[in-house]
Amino acid sequence: MNGHMTPDEFRQHGRQVVDWIADYLERVESYPVRSQSAPGDVRAGLPAHPPETGGSFDDLLADVDRVLMPGVTHWQHPNFFAYFPANATGPAILADLLSSGLGVQGMVWATSPACTELETVVVDWLAELLGLPASFRTDSTGGGVIQDSASSAALVAVLSALQRAGGGKIADSGITGRHTMYVSSQTHSALEKAARIAGIGSANVRVVDVDPRTLAMRPEHLSALIAEDVAAGAVPTLVCATVGTTSTTAIDPVAAVGEICRDRGIWLHIDAAYAGVAAVCPELRWINDGVAEYADSYATNPHKWLLTNFDCGVLWVADREPMISALSILPEFLRTTASASGEVIDYRDWQIPLGRRFRSLKLWSVIRWYGAEGLRAHIRTCVALADEFARLAGTDEDFEVREHHPFGLVCLRPLWTSKSADVANESTMALMERLNDSGALYLSHTKVNGQVVLRMAIGATTTERRHVLDAWERIRAEYRVLNGQR
Amino acid sequence: MNGHMTPDEFRQHGRQVVDWIADYLERVESYPVRSQSAPGDVRAGLPAHPPETGGSFDDLLADVDRVLMPGVTHWQHPNFFAYFPANATGPAILADLLSSGLGVQGMVWATSPACTELETVVVDWLAELLGLPASFRTDSTGGGVIQDSASSAALVAVLSALQRAGGGKIADSGITGRHTMYVSSQTHSALEKAARIAGIGSANVRVVDVDPRTLAMRPEHLSALIAEDVAAGAVPTLVCATVGTTSTTAIDPVAAVGEICRDRGIWLHIDAAYAGVAAVCPELRWINDGVAEYADSYATNPHKWLLTNFDCGVLWVADREPMISALSILPEFLRTTASASGEVIDYRDWQIPLGRRFRSLKLWSVIRWYGAEGLRAHIRTCVALADEFARLAGTDEDFEVREHHPFGLVCLRPLWTSKSADVANESTMALMERLNDSGALYLSHTKVNGQVVLRMAIGATTTERRHVLDAWERIRAEYRVLNGQR
Repeated sequence: MNGHMTPDEFRQHGRQVVDWIADYLERVESYPVRSQSAPGDVRAGLPAHPPETGGSFDDLLADVDRVLMPGVTHWQHPNFFAYFPANATGPAILADLLSSGLGVQGMVWATSPACTELETVVVDWLAELLGLPASFRTDSTGGGVIQDSASSAALVAVLSALQRAGGGKIADSGITGRHTMYVSSQTHSALEKAARIAGIGSANVRVVDVDPRTLAMRPEHLSALIAEDVAAGAVPTLVCATVGTTSTTAIDPVAAVGEICRDRGIWLHIDAAYAGVAAVCPELRWINDGVAEYADSYATNPHKWLLTNFDCGVLWVADREPMISALSILPEFLRTTASASGEVIDYRDWQIPLGRRFRSLKLWSVIRWYGAEGLRAHIRTCVALADEFARLAGTDEDFEVREHHPFGLVCLRPLWTSKSADVANESTMALMERLNDSGALYLSHTKVNGQVVLRMAIGATTTERRHVLDAWERIRAEYRVLNGQR
Repeated sequence: MNGHMTPDEFRQHGRQVVDWIADYLERVESYPVRSQSAPGDVRAGLPAHPPETGGSFDDLLADVDRVLMPGVTHWQHPNFFAYFPANATGPAILADLLSSGLGVQGMVWATSPACTELETVVVDWLAELLGLPASFRTDSTGGGVIQDSASSAALVAVLSALQRAGGGKIADSGITGRHTMYVSSQTHSALEKAARIAGIGSANVRVVDVDPRTLAMRPEHLSALIAEDVAAGAVPTLVCATVGTTSTTAIDPVAAVGEICRDRGIWLHIDAAYAGVAAVCPELRWINDGVAEYADSYATNPHKWLLTNFDCGVLWVADREPMISALSILPEFLRTTASASGEVIDYRDWQIPLGRRFRSLKLWSVIRWYGAEGLRAHIRTCVALADEFARLAGTDEDFEVREHHPFGLVCLRPLWTSKSADVANESTMALMERLNDSGALYLSHTKVNGQVVLRMAIGATTTERRHVLDAWERIRAEYRVLNGQR
C-alpha cells in the first residue's frame, strides 16, 4: 500500500511531470490538433472499477500517454485556431503549481491573508494595465475579483443588478414580478444562462437587433424594447454590451447603450471576455470607450488571451455594495475579528461558490514575467498575424473576409459555385470538418446573417507566422478539392 | 523583455518550484499555522503599479518567500485543526500540474474527449468506492460531475429541483410564485446562498428545528412546515439533509426526511461535503442510509478529506434530465456532431460556468496512487486520532466533549469557573484566540445551543499522533492560564 507521497518522492515525480510538460510543449506540433478519438474510446481504455491497491506514479504517467493523450484536443497547438485561445504559459503554470502546493483556502481574509491581498493588488494592476476606470479599483467604491470564467462573472453581475433594481430586497424576498435583461443576438449564451440561474428566465431576456453589417447592438431598438417592457410593468434590470463577441468580435456601442442605461437606471455589464485584455496596447485602448462613464461591471478573461492558464477571469464592479448585499451570508463558523472590523475583503462575498483557491498567483506571475511590454507584444503579434491572414484570404476571389478583425480573430467564408445558400452552408461545414478531421489544424464556425462562416482565431503562444501561412494554404487547397477545382 | 518561457526554462524553473513545494512540505511545521500578518501587511510589500518590463522567475520566488509567505495560513500544517481539512497531496498536486500543462477546455466533449470521459470514469469509480446507488452512475438515468465546491453543487441541485417542480418551465419563464426550501439551523449557509442566487430568496428558506442533543433535523417539524407552506400556496421545492454538518458533523435522518420528500414530490439534496468520503470505509458506510431510496442529488468534496487539492467537489444526481433542462443552452459556436448524436456528455450543461479545466486528472491520480485501501487508511487514521483526542478531553473534568464524533471532528467546550453563559462564551473565544495567535495550532469555533464550542478537525495528511497530543496539552495549558489556575 502506498502511504502519502514523501517530499523526496514528490521531488522525483515532480521532475517527471515538469519534464513531461516541457516535452509536450516541445512536441505539441506533432499531434493532431483535434483529438481523433471516437465517443467511448478513452473510457474503453480505462478499468471499469477503481483499484483496490495503490499503484506507481510511473504507471499513471504511462496511462496518460497511452489512454488519455489520444483523447486530448491540443489547445496549446500552434495550429489551434478554434473558439478562442486558452493560453497556458510557463509562468502561469508554475505559479498555479505553487497554488496547488500551498493548498490554501481563500474564502475569507483570515484563512490566508496573502491569498486575498495579492488578488487585490493584481486586479488593481490589471485595471491599470487596461486603462479601466478608477472606480473599478479596490481603493474606491468598486473593485475587482478573480472568477473562474466570464459566465460566472456575468451571473454575479446579474445578481448585483437584481439586488440594485429591487432596492436591496430581492436576495431576501426572491424574485417577484418580471425582471428583464437585454442582450443582442450576438451576446454570449452565458448571459441567457445567468438569467435562467438567477430566476429571471430565458423568456425575459430580450434580444436587441444588431446592425446587419457590424453586428453591433442597435441602441434605438434597445430603447424601444425597454420602453415596451416598462409600459408592460416589467423592471428592466441589466443590459449586456459586448466588446468582442464570441462569434465575430463585434463591438457594441458602449457609450450609446450606456446613455440609455443611465437614463433608465439599468445596470450596464460589459462582457469583454476575450477582447478586453487587448487594451494593454494603447492603440487598442479605444475598446474602452464609454466604459468609465457608464459601466457598472466589466469582465475579461486573462485565461483566454493574456497568457494565463484557465481558470482566471476578472470581474470589476464600479460599486461593490449591491454585489456584497446579494451574495453575503455570514455563518458563525466564518466570523472573524478581521472581517468584523471591515478592514479586509472577504472575496467569498464576491463570487458564487464559497471556497476559492490562490488564483492570483498565476496572474501575478504572468504580469511579472512578461511586464506590460511583454503583454503588449503578445497581443500585437496575434493582431499582426490576423491582419496578414485577412489580407491573404481577402485578396483571394474564392473567399470573402469580414472586414472587422481588430483582434486575433478573422471570419471568412468560402464562395461556392452553387447558388443555393443551404448548399453553400453545408459545403462550408464540410470544408471545416475535412480540415479538422485532418488533424493539421482546428477551426470553428459560426453563423452570420444565416451564412456559415469559418472562425480563424490566432492566439496560441506557439503560433508563428509559418503556421498561419500554412493554415491558409490548407484551407485554400481543401476548398479547391471540395469545389471541384482539383 | 522576456519572451515566452522556453521548454528549457520551464524545466529549470519547474524543478525550482517542485523543490520549493517539497521543501515547504518538509518544513511546514516550522511556520506559525495561522498567518500572523495584519490587514494590509502583504499589500504593503507589493509594488502599487505593475512592472513595465518583465522580470526573472527567481525574483518572483524570492518575493513569494519574502512578501507572501508571512501572509499564508498553512492549511497543510500538521497543527491545522480549523474548519475542515483541505488535503493537498503529491499525486493530486502533480496531476493538477498536468492539467495546467495540457491547458485543455472541457466545456463540451469535442473540445477534449479525454477530459470528459476520464471524468465520467472517476465519478463512477468514486460512487462505487462510497457505495452510492446505481442510479448515480452515468450508465443509468443519473450521473456524477466534478464541481468547484459543494456550494456550486448545491446551487445546481436547487436549479434542478426548481426545474422539476415547475414542470420544466422555470428556466424559461423565470420564477413566478413562491418556492420554498427546507434546511435546518445546522445546514451550511451555501444552501441559503443558493436560494438567493436562484431567485427563491432567503425568506423562503424555511429553517427546520433540530433535536437539541443530536442537532439532527426533526422530520415532524419538516412535515409541519411543508404542510403550512402548501396551505399558503407555496411550492415546496427542495429539502437539504446534511450528512456531517459543518458545525458539528451532525447527521440528519435521511430516510425519515426522504419519506416526507417522496410523499410530497420534493427534491432531496444530500450535502455530505465533508463526511461523504468517509463511506470508503465499510464501517462508516451507514452514513449512506436512505440515500439510495430517497436522494435526488448528493454532494461530497474530495478536496476536503479525500487527499485531493481544491477544487474538486463531486455532485451526483439520480436523474440528469431536470439538471440539463435547467442549465443547457446551445449556441451555434458550440454545436458539434458528437453532441448532436447524443452519444457523449457535455458537462458544461451540468454546472454553472461554461468553461472547465481537466479536474478529473487529480482525482484519478489520487485514487490510483492510494487505491481503495489507502483511502480507507487515511480516513481511519483521522477517525482514530479524533477518538483519542475525544477520550483525553472527555476525561478531563474541565472540558465537556460532544459525544458525537464519528469522523475527524471533535467539538469541545471548556468549563469556566464563572457561571455566566456570556462570560463563558467570551472566555472560550479568548482561549481560541490565544491559541491561534500563538501560531502553534489553529482551531475554529461554532455555537451549539447558544454555547461557543471549539472545533478540533483532524485531517491534514501531515498530522501525526504527537501533534494531536500536543494540541491537547496546549489547549489545557492555555485554559488553565485563562481560568486563573496557573
